[in-house]
Amino acid sequence: MIQVIDDLKDALKTLPGIGEKSAQRLALYILSQDKTASNKLGEAILESVKKVNNCNICNMLTDENPCRFCSSIKRNDKQLCIVEHTADVFMLDSTGEFYGKYFVLSNLLSPIDGLGPKDIHIDELLSRINDYEVEEVIIALSPSVEGETTISYIADRLADWSGKISRLSTGIPFGGDLEYSNKITIANALKHRFKMK
Amino acid sequence: MIQVIDDLKDALKTLPGIGEKSAQRLALYILSQDKTASNKLGEAILESVKKVNNCNICNMLTDENPCRFCSSIKRNDKQLCIVEHTADVFMLDSTGEFYGKYFVLSNLLSPIDGLGPKDIHIDELLSRINDYEVEEVIIALSPSVEGETTISYIADRLADWSGKISRLSTGIPFGGDLEYSNKITIANALKHRFKMK
Repeated sequence: MIQVIDDLKDALKTLPGIGEKSAQRLALYILSQDKTASNKLGEAILESVKKVNNCNICNMLTDENPCRFCSSIKRNDKQLCIVEHTADVFMLDSTGEFYGKYFVLSNLLSPIDGLGPKDIHIDELLSRINDYEVEEVIIALSPSVEGETTISYIADRLADWSGKISRLSTGIPFGGDLEYSNKITIANALKHRFKMK
Repeated sequence: MIQVIDDLKDALKTLPGIGEKSAQRLALYILSQDKTASNKLGEAILESVKKVNNCNICNMLTDENPCRFCSSIKRNDKQLCIVEHTADVFMLDSTGEFYGKYFVLSNLLSPIDGLGPKDIHIDELLSRINDYEVEEVIIALSPSVEGETTISYIADRLADWSGKISRLSTGIPFGGDLEYSNKITIANALKHRFKMK
């Protein structure tokens, strides 16, 4: 193949979910389409990489520092919601049901992948909780193997802390079908069933 | 969301197969990973867009003009293989079974999508065949609805031309399973069965 196209393909292959074939398809698409659109894409990447950094307080991706959530005086400093990714902050925020602050771990604990306490910024999280005198921690991590490990680890590290800790409920998703749910989901839904009457 | 992240997401959404959700996921990945890798991606796009153009003779994407296939004196000028995309040239070339030249249509005829004869560069193709005194045309287009339409159209336009025309065989792919093939494939395989004895 042609070197400059190969270089583009290799750069695209670093993206998640983009393998050899997709990278080649994308590369040739980028070069086939109108040059204005492709230049715009290249510039959007460079521009955003330059402008976006992690918030010094909550660790989320942001173009201001501290981010708009951390600097908001309308949000409750005493409630802290722990998420994995910046995308989770936007998702939770879009529900309009949470008015506290966030903390982004960036990773989940995964010894197999060499991801330990440092990778989830545990020290920053503990200082954040102490420094701002947080009263309630809500752990909003995915109920996967790594998620559960991380949830337990954080709960352990906060064992002597005086505040409240909760985690998002697990169960059958809205619109989901019992028949097509997996056993663990149903077991969880049974275990955490809530009283109606 | 944050404007600069939104801009990146919108630019990524122009790529084929990348919807709203994937674009957001890619954007946040690009901004989460090491800045060097992301800058490299942005620069690879701008660099390749600057360097790569369509070959004046065969229309394929290339960083030289004419491309290495058209300027090769080792390849047979009298055999011309017609393909849809530049990627198809690389694919055919990797078989090591064809030593002629190529012509890239860039599109297939598709009246529904407003793609007519101009979009497949039919005039350039006909001049190419005349100017270089081509003796054999091999049509290597996908056997889809648009592919078949385009194959028929090109054959029609070459009806009065004196050279040979062929198209790639259709049938059950190597490693494919009869049971899981579709009816049209099997009908084609039957119709084009070849004598063994």
